[in-house]
Amino acid sequence: MANDSTDRIVADLRRWIATAPPGARVPSNRELMARHGASPVTVQKAMRTLVALGLVDSRPGVGTFVRGIRPPRPVDYAWQTSALGAAQSRLLGLPSAQRAPSPDAIALHAGYPDRELLPERLVRSAIARAARTDAAATRSPVAGAPDLQAWFAAELASAAPAGVTPPAARDVLILSGSQSGLSSIFRALVGPGQPLLIESPTYWGAILAATQANVRLVPVASGPDGPDLDDVDRAFEQTGARAFYVQPTYANPTGAQWSAERGRAVLDIARRHGAFLVEDDWAHDLAIDTDPRPIAAFDDDGHVIYLRSLTKSVSPALRVAAVTARGPARERILADRAAESMYVSGLLQAASLDVVTQPAWRTHLRSVREQLRARRDVLVSSLAEHAPLAHLEHVPRGGLNLWLRLPGDTDVEGFVRACEGRGVIVADGAEWFPAEASAPHIRLNYSGPSPERYPEAARVIAEELDRAL
Amino acid sequence: MANDSTDRIVADLRRWIATAPPGARVPSNRELMARHGASPVTVQKAMRTLVALGLVDSRPGVGTFVRGIRPPRPVDYAWQTSALGAAQSRLLGLPSAQRAPSPDAIALHAGYPDRELLPERLVRSAIARAARTDAAATRSPVAGAPDLQAWFAAELASAAPAGVTPPAARDVLILSGSQSGLSSIFRALVGPGQPLLIESPTYWGAILAATQANVRLVPVASGPDGPDLDDVDRAFEQTGARAFYVQPTYANPTGAQWSAERGRAVLDIARRHGAFLVEDDWAHDLAIDTDPRPIAAFDDDGHVIYLRSLTKSVSPALRVAAVTARGPARERILADRAAESMYVSGLLQAASLDVVTQPAWRTHLRSVREQLRARRDVLVSSLAEHAPLAHLEHVPRGGLNLWLRLPGDTDVEGFVRACEGRGVIVADGAEWFPAEASAPHIRLNYSGPSPERYPEAARVIAEELDRAL
Repeated sequence: MANDSTDRIVADLRRWIATAPPGARVPSNRELMARHGASPVTVQKAMRTLVALGLVDSRPGVGTFVRGIRPPRPVDYAWQTSALGAAQSRLLGLPSAQRAPSPDAIALHAGYPDRELLPERLVRSAIARAARTDAAATRSPVAGAPDLQAWFAAELASAAPAGVTPPAARDVLILSGSQSGLSSIFRALVGPGQPLLIESPTYWGAILAATQANVRLVPVASGPDGPDLDDVDRAFEQTGARAFYVQPTYANPTGAQWSAERGRAVLDIARRHGAFLVEDDWAHDLAIDTDPRPIAAFDDDGHVIYLRSLTKSVSPALRVAAVTARGPARERILADRAAESMYVSGLLQAASLDVVTQPAWRTHLRSVREQLRARRDVLVSSLAEHAPLAHLEHVPRGGLNLWLRLPGDTDVEGFVRACEGRGVIVADGAEWFPAEASAPHIRLNYSGPSPERYPEAARVIAEELDRAL
Repeated sequence: MANDSTDRIVADLRRWIATAPPGARVPSNRELMARHGASPVTVQKAMRTLVALGLVDSRPGVGTFVRGIRPPRPVDYAWQTSALGAAQSRLLGLPSAQRAPSPDAIALHAGYPDRELLPERLVRSAIARAARTDAAATRSPVAGAPDLQAWFAAELASAAPAGVTPPAARDVLILSGSQSGLSSIFRALVGPGQPLLIESPTYWGAILAATQANVRLVPVASGPDGPDLDDVDRAFEQTGARAFYVQPTYANPTGAQWSAERGRAVLDIARRHGAFLVEDDWAHDLAIDTDPRPIAAFDDDGHVIYLRSLTKSVSPALRVAAVTARGPARERILADRAAESMYVSGLLQAASLDVVTQPAWRTHLRSVREQLRARRDVLVSSLAEHAPLAHLEHVPRGGLNLWLRLPGDTDVEGFVRACEGRGVIVADGAEWFPAEASAPHIRLNYSGPSPERYPEAARVIAEELDRAL
């Protein structure tokens, strides 16, 4: 139905309808054809869209009229108060990474890369091809499309050293985005009231999913080299936790990449405590200076639950991720996914597999690496020049974020608001802490639009930081 | 990447690789071109797919070889036993409606309509169009695409009588399938350990979602006219439940359609008890003899939580549904969806809206109505002729299923197995009961493939029923 001129006529009429009185006559098709230089077919399509949206009524032979909107009655849903009871406050309200910025602001708060970092042409043609396959007309198996399962398994197997049996295709479960995977893992492997070790700071989406699953969060401090091994051991020992959620590669927000030795040491600790390591490899396709080497590649006895997503590197419209898990853990997660959502659209799976098996995908990844490097370096040097008070704890070797510590007595909320007032949107670091923030921080994402304005953003940050102190 | 001849070559080589020893040389591109009459580009694409799937290694200038598969080590995940603890048995194992039938069986067990009942051509072109829009490259808002929210709201508003304020577009939350909606509603509005009234029998997916949410199920018997009003009132009274899950229109499995009076009476009871009515209008687009009239259309104080899905009527690949809720209930459900999955692919939303706003969509719905009528009538008359012992409680006026009561002492499990052995797959009615089945039943779906074989299926059912008694 949609083509550009239909869309334009619909948009134009919607603006007009918004201020027109109910019952007003919509311009005739003939008038609209003349005004927009459009064909009869195009104008008819636009009118049918407006009818379908309930904005106008068409009376054949008479004309088309703005729909009489019933006067809204003042409503009060007070009765719901006691039906619903108290809410988990952490679940309500959008985190800053999800907010839509005003179009002329410098958006350093987002969690998703700008369009120019995505393989848009590849994605569009992959979708068009998938539309012609059976994937557009049939149901996917609950665990996912076998070919896509095999691709995720092969990716992990390619990093496995000799002597380690890599996961098989059937160990891979396809998800509609890794957030769904986090929710299922925490529900299925931890459960209400049970302890879950979690890095602090860490990804707010994981904190949110864990909160929703009513697990008991046990924060473990983590820095540029990952968590302290004695801390991890002690936390398992003292709480009896059976799972630890970690981001060993380009952690969000800190950018930390653990050494291979640290990764294996943490895996050994988890083994000793009969526990799972939930490895969220969110930035696998967003490397800059190093290459990712998942801990999961060193595991062959089912201790690592491995999450990988394509949403951030392929397209936000192809919401596809995978969790790899072995043994009974796989069955538990699969059962939770079946109860939660039955299956993932096969269309999205087919299009995603098409993209990542194209030769152009490798080319694209190399180009993203260079773009991220350039963006990161401009933001780092702009901040070093203009805002030395914002202390960069660690230059990330991959991922999308800088994690900056502010002077001890900064009012971060006020500072973030003041920056926003001047058109620079930054994220309050408090959102990444499962408990109180250990120090004032902000997170700056260098994958948003307008990298050429980073120096300007750094100057605003510096000025508002001076003012906040 | 995918086109028919590439796919054929890949499939052919995969079969060969499955039995070839590791290190075996794959036929040269020249040989493959000759064997398949394919172009060099096509053959190269096939080889790249096999490399990407990890099945072969390509050594430039030497050849392509079957990948050395590491010998699988016997593994035992016994350590997970105590890490995971006991499981909720209801969550494990696939219900029969989700099982894939053998291709030559007569499949009367499925929950999804056959391809010939779906608007496949419309769907394919809608996806292709959506691939060219912004929906393929951007993130959808958490609550859904505004135009699709508006369409769902307009659908409900068109059924609202004068004097009732219909829900607005913002009251509609877009979901990836109604199963996700059930899970969120039960988590967000009922919660662990709290009572939920539920019709008995009812949709197994709702029972599954409620089990996953750890709510306490309170079954209320429901027949061809819906539940008894005194039963409903008493169940609210005795349990203090704040929600009742219902399918008032072409209920699954019974096919019941409540009268308008019954619907309003149940709504009044819910109002008196300060409770929600969760109305699952799953078969809105699958009417035969009557038209659906949602109870939600009569509600303007936020008592009805209204679920509607497009998965069964548009395409199983376009997993799109909507929940309409007003007041704080909307905020709770939205917060749960954000924590569970962030947002729904905008591509699926754009393609779905495109389909349902095409004039051909209305034509398609009329044709589906006639096809369902014919299929239902053939199955009803075949059973009446051949299998009078299978008692049809009610000829459904819409939906996809016949609900048959078997003689009191039938061993349903054995009967279902025996039918399957003879190539007729039927579903054991026990799966639709939240507790013990009140009597032996089977459910027969008349929207699967091969309706011309219904008389044959009825004869098999009759013979095996005789044998089971």
